[in-house]
Amino acid sequence: MNGWHLHPQLADDTHPLATFALCELRLMDDANYPWLVLVPRVADAVELIDLDAAQRHALTDEIDRASHVLRDVFRPYKLNIAALGNLVPQLHVHVIARYEEDPAWPRPVWGTAAARPYTAEALIERIARLSEALRV
Amino acid sequence: MNGWHLHPQLADDTHPLATFALCELRLMDDANYPWLVLVPRVADAVELIDLDAAQRHALTDEIDRASHVLRDVFRPYKLNIAALGNLVPQLHVHVIARYEEDPAWPRPVWGTAAARPYTAEALIERIARLSEALRV
Repeated sequence: MNGWHLHPQLADDTHPLATFALCELRLMDDANYPWLVLVPRVADAVELIDLDAAQRHALTDEIDRASHVLRDVFRPYKLNIAALGNLVPQLHVHVIARYEEDPAWPRPVWGTAAARPYTAEALIERIARLSEALRV
Repeated sequence: MNGWHLHPQLADDTHPLATFALCELRLMDDANYPWLVLVPRVADAVELIDLDAAQRHALTDEIDRASHVLRDVFRPYKLNIAALGNLVPQLHVHVIARYEEDPAWPRPVWGTAAARPYTAEALIERIARLSEALRV
């Protein structure tokens, strides 16, 4: 759509979960945390301020939907939501389920514990649970 | 409004800048980064999912306004936007101007460099610049 394509780094780091009206919903390949990433399909968007009002509102609605799925499936202690983009310039929003027992708590997850990629079996199971929750 | 009051930790860590329709806009007392905090005046809100759709849309519009002010005044290399709340449970959103030369780059700012409180003179100057930009 309008020349948008997923940044290769995000393609490497995440697995596809769903296509929402504005965003691609992806699963971060890090079994340390239930961690979703929303990527608006808006060509050349880097910052949230690159979105217009309708896109901003759609994004926050999709963050809400992704957050409810994480909460319902994983019952986290806290949700962390962030648009940083210091390393990967394509606009993307992290939606992360946090626990007081997770490897980074209470710090943010970035740059703390090394990513722990899913085994094939764990990945299939996790995607199945999330896909089921997304269908409801 | 409805029993809302600013969390004492946020009151300690930040200075008042403006009252928006939904949020209090505050300046983080850390001269390492131009760093704003938006606090929705919604009693007992902890997570973004505690807001209803109208409040979510208002919040993203106020994030957009705060972001434009930071960009216009400080010309950062990148903006970082986040709702974490792992330490302070009252819902609040960070809007931070980042530079490739700042003390935490490219990591997120939390838990890296110790906060560097403004001197009285620097604080007055910074609040004046931001207040002027907010009036435009």
